[in-house]
Amino acid sequence: MPDPLITLTTDFGEESPYVAAMKGVILTINPAARLLDLSHAIPPQDIRHAAWFLAGALPWFPPGVIHLVVVDPGVGTKRELLCIELHGQRLLAPDNGCWTLLEAGGKPVVRRLRERRWWLSDISATFHGRDILAPTAAHLSLGVEPQALGPKTTRWVRLAVEKPTVDADGARGEVAFIDRFGNLITNIPATAIRQPPETLTVGGEAAAKFRWVRTYGEARHGSVVALTSSSGHLEVAVVDGDAAQHFAARIGTPVAIGWTR
Amino acid sequence: MPDPLITLTTDFGEESPYVAAMKGVILTINPAARLLDLSHAIPPQDIRHAAWFLAGALPWFPPGVIHLVVVDPGVGTKRELLCIELHGQRLLAPDNGCWTLLEAGGKPVVRRLRERRWWLSDISATFHGRDILAPTAAHLSLGVEPQALGPKTTRWVRLAVEKPTVDADGARGEVAFIDRFGNLITNIPATAIRQPPETLTVGGEAAAKFRWVRTYGEARHGSVVALTSSSGHLEVAVVDGDAAQHFAARIGTPVAIGWTR
Amino acid sequence: MPDPLITLTTDFGEESPYVAAMKGVILTINPAARLLDLSHAIPPQDIRHAAWFLAGALPWFPPGVIHLVVVDPGVGTKRELLCIELHGQRLLAPDNGCWTLLEAGGKPVVRRLRERRWWLSDISATFHGRDILAPTAAHLSLGVEPQALGPKTTRWVRLAVEKPTVDADGARGEVAFIDRFGNLITNIPATAIRQPPETLTVGGEAAAKFRWVRTYGEARHGSVVALTSSSGHLEVAVVDGDAAQHFAARIGTPVAIGWTR
Repeated sequence: MPDPLITLTTDFGEESPYVAAMKGVILTINPAARLLDLSHAIPPQDIRHAAWFLAGALPWFPPGVIHLVVVDPGVGTKRELLCIELHGQRLLAPDNGCWTLLEAGGKPVVRRLRERRWWLSDISATFHGRDILAPTAAHLSLGVEPQALGPKTTRWVRLAVEKPTVDADGARGEVAFIDRFGNLITNIPATAIRQPPETLTVGGEAAAKFRWVRTYGEARHGSVVALTSSSGHLEVAVVDGDAAQHFAARIGTPVAIGWTR
Repeated sequence: MPDPLITLTTDFGEESPYVAAMKGVILTINPAARLLDLSHAIPPQDIRHAAWFLAGALPWFPPGVIHLVVVDPGVGTKRELLCIELHGQRLLAPDNGCWTLLEAGGKPVVRRLRERRWWLSDISATFHGRDILAPTAAHLSLGVEPQALGPKTTRWVRLAVEKPTVDADGARGEVAFIDRFGNLITNIPATAIRQPPETLTVGGEAAAKFRWVRTYGEARHGSVVALTSSSGHLEVAVVDGDAAQHFAARIGTPVAIGWTR
Repeated sequence: MPDPLITLTTDFGEESPYVAAMKGVILTINPAARLLDLSHAIPPQDIRHAAWFLAGALPWFPPGVIHLVVVDPGVGTKRELLCIELHGQRLLAPDNGCWTLLEAGGKPVVRRLRERRWWLSDISATFHGRDILAPTAAHLSLGVEPQALGPKTTRWVRLAVEKPTVDADGARGEVAFIDRFGNLITNIPATAIRQPPETLTVGGEAAAKFRWVRTYGEARHGSVVALTSSSGHLEVAVVDGDAAQHFAARIGTPVAIGWTR
């Protein structure tokens, strides 16, 4: 059986020693742990970005994996730290809604981290990722059971998520994520796109011209396309270009598609 | 024997969940695979950069390693996906020329990925890295033989590579790569530099003053130097400075050296 | 026993193939080595940044780990390469002071790398990370003893470190590190802060208003706070904001706190 796997997702960047310190803490407790970076480039304290990132990444992992998530604007305040068991994986994260988008279709068992014997002996007020979450992850990887970490809870913070509206004339939602290529991934699920859209509106302005395609390469260099994203949502892109720039779009910019019946 | 190693090179950046999703897919199929990041900072869809990156990195790896490369502007179109056996390593990549610079001196055995049983069951139109290349890499790491992936081919895309010219008066080429320090790595091989150059021209303008050195520290802070790069090419640098900025040079900027007989 | 662990810290960035080449060299010599990235985002040739990074990261690692550090402005000149045994860990790095901040409280055993049989056979003049340090790390991980690498030395380069001054009226130091959130970490140790400071000066200007807190969340959005950093130093932050921007502060900017007796 391979050694236990712990993934790391943070907003720490790589210039600071924070991620490295967490790795050292884990390996001090469990020298055999396998560490896997998912991202340290979550924008600082951006829980919404973290939520979308985790929703696009974690479902592809097998059961048994331990995920350590540190995007934690409330560090040191009374916000709780959680252990979440979901789909056979375990997630350690601050109670700030960063895992809301993973909840759908699962039955999470959630615990509050309270048992200090799994923590470092000195707890700083500003770095619980190193002092509490990392050692807890290491102990889980050694076989400690989640029930030893703290009491179950049925209340946790949920991110307010905008829901798209769909009717016979079309669908309205917003930009949920912008990737490195400037592609706009919306919160409109592909299942809501009952027919190829005839109109496309981004940020209040209708696209003069666009094509509904299966993939980028079906339209010409520089043209606007709408398609189903690899995450199963409506995506707006510019072929070989940057749709976010083209539409001056940001997270939250409204997007609508429509068709005549 | 150590667990099989799969390296990852992409243009996805770390902000998006794409790299993490590929890692999850691989570990779901082969939980014992060892994953190794080479780079996720290849400039978006820049096949030329990817080609130079791979030429500078892959020859240093031992036989047996599996390299997964996803710089894929043609995703979802009819471009093929390839398995390349070269120098005892295996490379999975889109057929877009990203491995052209590795070909010299090797006898690649190239196959087209066609056998869908090694792929995910649902194939998106825009993320073959996750849906085809990652699971194929995982199956290779479990012992599947390349011949099971698809038919051999003798035709593949080759990157058009500018060749330098060398004669009795000097050598002319271009900037092939610019590293983080602003050093200009050219396509002129060190073997073409028969004697210390007396003239140096970058982008049409002759350097008023420069020194031919073995290493940066042999000349003064801020001065222009020419030397043999660690990859074995002519390199132009500014000591403790940024030659790309100094010469306003980019990939493709002409570079020439000369000497009097 | 888990396979030996080699960490990597460089200023190479991820766009260039330099880090990947080092990984390949290590795995060619010891295919079972476990590689762990600490950072490749140290600012180019910034030894001071590297020193602070290592001081914040390495003490959290267990004994037995091998750390490879390549921030090496003097590559190819007569500067030495060192093997440092400290707190049961081994550090391979250029002799440029990058490990000065780790020295306190330890008894380092330092050797100069001289035995060429552990190096690659061809040594470039500009990439000793790949040609000397990486293969040496790999051989250490295979069980080669430090004494086989070269002779002991008692002389090495030390980074000039500004010492803070502390008296009955307060403490004066400087910004030693700025993290991704713009928090200013100073060189004033928490032990010097005998009572909550009543005045705070950054860069010569007194903060009109600030609060002494335990953690960021204790003060309002946008307000200036002083606190003990997770590394045990005086830290100046702006709640949900960027203190470096707020104070136009840089590494070396003077910081003072004071109190009335």
